[in-house]
Amino acid sequence: RYLKDSSPSSTRLSRYRRIVLLTDGFSTPFYAKTAIGLLRYRGNDVVAVLDRKCAGQSTGELFGVGDATPVVGSLDGLHADALFLATALVGGRIPENWRRILFDAIGKGIDVISGTHEFLSEDKEFSKLAEASGANLIDVRRNMARETSTGQPLHEGCLRIHTVGQDCTLGKMVVSLEVQRQLAQDGLDAQFIATGQTGIMISGQGLPVDCIVGDFINGSVESLVRRNEHHDILVIEGQGSISHPSFSAVTLGLLHGCAPHGLIYCYELGRQTVKGLDGVPLLDHRTLIDAYLANASLRQPSELIGIAINGRNASANEVESEKRELEARFNVPACDVYRHGAKPLADAVLRLDAERKR
Amino acid sequence: RYLKDSSPSSTRLSRYRRIVLLTDGFSTPFYAKTAIGLLRYRGNDVVAVLDRKCAGQSTGELFGVGDATPVVGSLDGLHADALFLATALVGGRIPENWRRILFDAIGKGIDVISGTHEFLSEDKEFSKLAEASGANLIDVRRNMARETSTGQPLHEGCLRIHTVGQDCTLGKMVVSLEVQRQLAQDGLDAQFIATGQTGIMISGQGLPVDCIVGDFINGSVESLVRRNEHHDILVIEGQGSISHPSFSAVTLGLLHGCAPHGLIYCYELGRQTVKGLDGVPLLDHRTLIDAYLANASLRQPSELIGIAINGRNASANEVESEKRELEARFNVPACDVYRHGAKPLADAVLRLDAERKR
Repeated sequence: RYLKDSSPSSTRLSRYRRIVLLTDGFSTPFYAKTAIGLLRYRGNDVVAVLDRKCAGQSTGELFGVGDATPVVGSLDGLHADALFLATALVGGRIPENWRRILFDAIGKGIDVISGTHEFLSEDKEFSKLAEASGANLIDVRRNMARETSTGQPLHEGCLRIHTVGQDCTLGKMVVSLEVQRQLAQDGLDAQFIATGQTGIMISGQGLPVDCIVGDFINGSVESLVRRNEHHDILVIEGQGSISHPSFSAVTLGLLHGCAPHGLIYCYELGRQTVKGLDGVPLLDHRTLIDAYLANASLRQPSELIGIAINGRNASANEVESEKRELEARFNVPACDVYRHGAKPLADAVLRLDAERKR
Repeated sequence: RYLKDSSPSSTRLSRYRRIVLLTDGFSTPFYAKTAIGLLRYRGNDVVAVLDRKCAGQSTGELFGVGDATPVVGSLDGLHADALFLATALVGGRIPENWRRILFDAIGKGIDVISGTHEFLSEDKEFSKLAEASGANLIDVRRNMARETSTGQPLHEGCLRIHTVGQDCTLGKMVVSLEVQRQLAQDGLDAQFIATGQTGIMISGQGLPVDCIVGDFINGSVESLVRRNEHHDILVIEGQGSISHPSFSAVTLGLLHGCAPHGLIYCYELGRQTVKGLDGVPLLDHRTLIDAYLANASLRQPSELIGIAINGRNASANEVESEKRELEARFNVPACDVYRHGAKPLADAVLRLDAERKR
């Protein structure tokens, strides 16, 4: 029964081994960030990307990740076990010209996984066909999160690190995953906590914070954190930005719900305006970092422990000089996890952990 | 068809003239705040309060408002045109022992209006009975708000005033309504903008901000404001508190969505802990006012224009000395709208208006 599987915490998501990523018509880095994340962190489970116009290329050519994984024009002959809708579309709607592809997948009995705000399982045509074919329709954003906060302190033996940013779509999830992986590699019990559709699709669990009803955002995040407090360290993925005209509600609910001890501030070098909005200028780092710290400390004393530079549109020299300047200005390590790895940030987590235990 | 009427902006709500307010088992000032608000601002449309245990009293005795309006034990003989669920229950669920009352109302063809998070119109038994009897089921919180912000400036010719607070349930709606009424009385084109269930039930329009999906909180509020920019002044009802463990997401989304020029800070004299949470201390006024101003100004320069003291649990002398102290400390007028009326706050709005036009 497809509706039972529409839970964001379903670990069923982790079990797929022959995933096709649907980015049809939206194969740019901004829109296809879900595909790029899945190729980067679940590349072995992905058999193809589906984009009718780009068919014949490799994902390495198209996105710079996933090497020779093919871009195809249809599902034929792929023996896929799941089709992931792998774009982040503003407004979260399913493009009209995707419906034929979805009918094809569902008809073939392939599970379809969606992170859109518009739910597959509420579409009568999709769900009727799925019932007939046995395909599961999984809406990652669909949730009945209905928890409020107790306001009581969280477990102090669990160190909570949270990535926050200057804007959306600049790598908070990647930084969180890289820091968690570095900590795990260093032998620590660190857990990545997904709070967005791509993170949930990668890790198979988490909470779609941006799709929770207002009154329950903080409390549901707090609950998610409490369910994971048996780990020594949590690295909690951030969302949006505290100054984002559309998404600041989600950002603050998440910040207060996870009550972090340490913040990692993320930004993209060279970005001047809010992504997806016309000419709305971004605020400067100092203003935003102050805003994050002040807001976090309304609930829990928090400090900046590091800065993650996304240097995808900058030269190595520019990143280096930016790094030095930021480190001098904010007195914390800065790095580009794509270029330098996450070691400087993971070490900052360990220093905070040691300080707190002293 | 009852579902068509489940829109929060329906002005149908304004048309009822024989309203019964249901507070059964929850007739305390904290829980019955919706009933108290409706008695205060739509008293002429209310024929009774329904509470089986308190039947025989008047609402004047029970709540200190509504004079001789009777408290009754059933709907019999009232010729009601609507039953309003008039409590604010944590978690927003309908008490099990209310179902018999609701069946009685719906069976009699009386419209039922609810502000709970649990929707009447999604309850199969209620909706089946309503279809048979012709009663309308109106869920004030039900919404499909799906707007995001453009990030573009709002209309500068419309002055936006927003009430914010130290906590929830301390009178932000009342202050907003009193200020709007005073401005209207002074001959100004001022509009009250409801953002919660009670305000919507009183004014017949608005947006249930706490029930909007995270990604759309800011944008839907912004849209609501843009739809009302033809007024000279908007007084936008605040929700929750910027430091509330459960509701800060809603508070910030609303603050950024309505981008206020002026803030009125509201608090209850003597309250020490967060309402409804066990022993969680409230933050001090200075910290909170600074947090509101800093957060508001991430989008739009904003200033504190006044302070509203809720002195319901304090003596006249205590309120007077508090008022003098606050005015000296924050350099803005302070008053208790219940005791002093809203004139000092309305005058502060006019001063800000004059300053901006200079």
